[in-house]
Amino acid sequence: MAKKNVAWQALLLHKKLGGKIRVTPAAPIRNRGDLALMYTPGVATVSSVIAKKPKLARMYTIKKRMVAVISDGSAVLGLGNIGALGALPVMEGKCAIFKTFAGVDAVPLVLDTQDPERIVKTVIAIAPAFGGINLEDIAAPKCFDIEKRVIEALDIPVMHDDQHGTAIVVLAAILNALKVVKKKLSSARIVILGAGAAGTATAHILHAAGARDIVVLDSKGIVNGSRPEPHKRELAKFNARGVKGNLRDALKGADVLLGVSGPNLVKANDVFLMARKAVVLAMANPTPEIMPNEAKKGGAAVIATGRSDFPNQVNNSLAFPGVFRGALDNSVRKITAEMKLKAARAIAALVPNPTPNKIVPDMFDKRVAKAVAKVIR
Amino acid sequence: MAKKNVAWQALLLHKKLGGKIRVTPAAPIRNRGDLALMYTPGVATVSSVIAKKPKLARMYTIKKRMVAVISDGSAVLGLGNIGALGALPVMEGKCAIFKTFAGVDAVPLVLDTQDPERIVKTVIAIAPAFGGINLEDIAAPKCFDIEKRVIEALDIPVMHDDQHGTAIVVLAAILNALKVVKKKLSSARIVILGAGAAGTATAHILHAAGARDIVVLDSKGIVNGSRPEPHKRELAKFNARGVKGNLRDALKGADVLLGVSGPNLVKANDVFLMARKAVVLAMANPTPEIMPNEAKKGGAAVIATGRSDFPNQVNNSLAFPGVFRGALDNSVRKITAEMKLKAARAIAALVPNPTPNKIVPDMFDKRVAKAVAKVIR
Repeated sequence: MAKKNVAWQALLLHKKLGGKIRVTPAAPIRNRGDLALMYTPGVATVSSVIAKKPKLARMYTIKKRMVAVISDGSAVLGLGNIGALGALPVMEGKCAIFKTFAGVDAVPLVLDTQDPERIVKTVIAIAPAFGGINLEDIAAPKCFDIEKRVIEALDIPVMHDDQHGTAIVVLAAILNALKVVKKKLSSARIVILGAGAAGTATAHILHAAGARDIVVLDSKGIVNGSRPEPHKRELAKFNARGVKGNLRDALKGADVLLGVSGPNLVKANDVFLMARKAVVLAMANPTPEIMPNEAKKGGAAVIATGRSDFPNQVNNSLAFPGVFRGALDNSVRKITAEMKLKAARAIAALVPNPTPNKIVPDMFDKRVAKAVAKVIR
Repeated sequence: MAKKNVAWQALLLHKKLGGKIRVTPAAPIRNRGDLALMYTPGVATVSSVIAKKPKLARMYTIKKRMVAVISDGSAVLGLGNIGALGALPVMEGKCAIFKTFAGVDAVPLVLDTQDPERIVKTVIAIAPAFGGINLEDIAAPKCFDIEKRVIEALDIPVMHDDQHGTAIVVLAAILNALKVVKKKLSSARIVILGAGAAGTATAHILHAAGARDIVVLDSKGIVNGSRPEPHKRELAKFNARGVKGNLRDALKGADVLLGVSGPNLVKANDVFLMARKAVVLAMANPTPEIMPNEAKKGGAAVIATGRSDFPNQVNNSLAFPGVFRGALDNSVRKITAEMKLKAARAIAALVPNPTPNKIVPDMFDKRVAKAVAKVIR
């Protein structure tokens, strides 16, 4: 479909549907007998039992299967800070994906506040009905502290998908891309363009997976220990050779370039500076940091984007549905760094013989969510 | 079904279902083409359009059709303060009823706080995704102020169902019961046992409908102008003859007794004090203030309860689904006193020739929600 066509058709479909999810009873209410069990008087027994032993909510209620997809609309897709209502169609879409790919019942919530303190308090206040919280499209750097505080406060899994969903699928893609070019993660020189939610979490998971040479850049160049933001000072520690300067300085001899920033920031000339058999993941959406044909001109051997119209679509949908499916099924209280690593490896393992045009499984491959869910325990 | 049997079967059903609602995509996501319209890149257009003109959220998103059913678990059914998780099965049941009776997509939210200030702030914070807010099972007197503040803060309809849902159906029942006994509302002596959420709202709607002699009692007796609670001092104003004392004092010569308090508080002897052709509505659930056979012994001509196993089941389900259906369909921003009156009259009108055993329509009568929705505009 042409781009304009997609835009137009999407508007039409959204208008026709009037919201992309539906809430339905899990069993029919046809008569007084049904009502007596689904509602009063039968429900009083269920409520009393849970009131005495709150743990049983996981047996008798929707907490067993329901996830909240929550955003303040401060960093939506490539659109930036478009607010709660602007973010709502994206959250609905995620909820539809949750059900389609992993059978998870997900509810979109968009917040009438962008204040970190109020976001944290609101998420904690509405948590009881949910078995998990998927934070979404919250701007960096506040997203780091918000996620941390909500995780500490709750006994259900909480994940900011822009950070960790992205990190998991990107690691899976890089593991298989390096396999294609026969390089090792431990000795690979990796450049990450973008020090926001995705760049930061990806740097951390790559380091946890064994990468030892990671240079991260923000709009001011390679981040170093004197940046004002604490999360960027942390990232500077991964820069083992102490590389300084701009993107071109970083790319000299690099094995992997990961773009998690914005459209058209990288040229074929830049890729040309990289080592032989370079891997380029240009994740900005809908317009990547560099188009695949340009990256190829620059000599890249393996190229991936976030788009469905090129090979190697690296999309969070490979990770988040399975992560929460597993967390719900296995009553996981916290999604650990170890689990995220295992999830990335499980996704990579579904493509045992990767090629330049096939480093990650297809989003519609039904094995993906199952394989991920299995290791979230 | 025997009571014990219902309790047991309800537990089994809740365990089998693991939550009484499901969230599903409104259209299938079968392939990349579907995904491009339901999610990226198509959704970016929808989000941008809404960001520019937030009103369009009512056209393109779930805000058009989704209601939140929110409780802090402080006054659940007849069970009292059983907390958020204890309340969850009830809220799920209400969501199932919303869809079954009126096609409304409703999401259960239970709050990890019982502090009025935090409840108000939380409801306001999560409001953007919703087209309406159904507050539920929040204890009196805090429920009055919470509802008032949330209504003032939001531009979507907000209704505390324990107050107004009950008030609407009770008024409908009383209108038809008085028709059966050929008495007028304007001259009827009405006694309300219970000055909580339901009793208070019912007294107000009865007064708005034309009742001029309403005596309300709490656990200390007939409420008067020196009660510490402001809402009770308001109720005392409806006591036109200035009746003082206890329930028996109130019941002398009364035409209507409405029980919205607790089990077994009224005896046949008490009903015997009432005027000829007395109307008794004993709404406490699951055990009414007086059982129908006892009320009959006391001489009551028309008897109603909240239960499905006796004639004249007066249940909120006759009101709230249609109220929110109408509010969503007609883009109503506030549910006014006038609308509530009209809703009660619309319900009563569905039984044009009421009899002692048939004063309200059947809950499964499909005309009810439609008739109510029609007048919420």
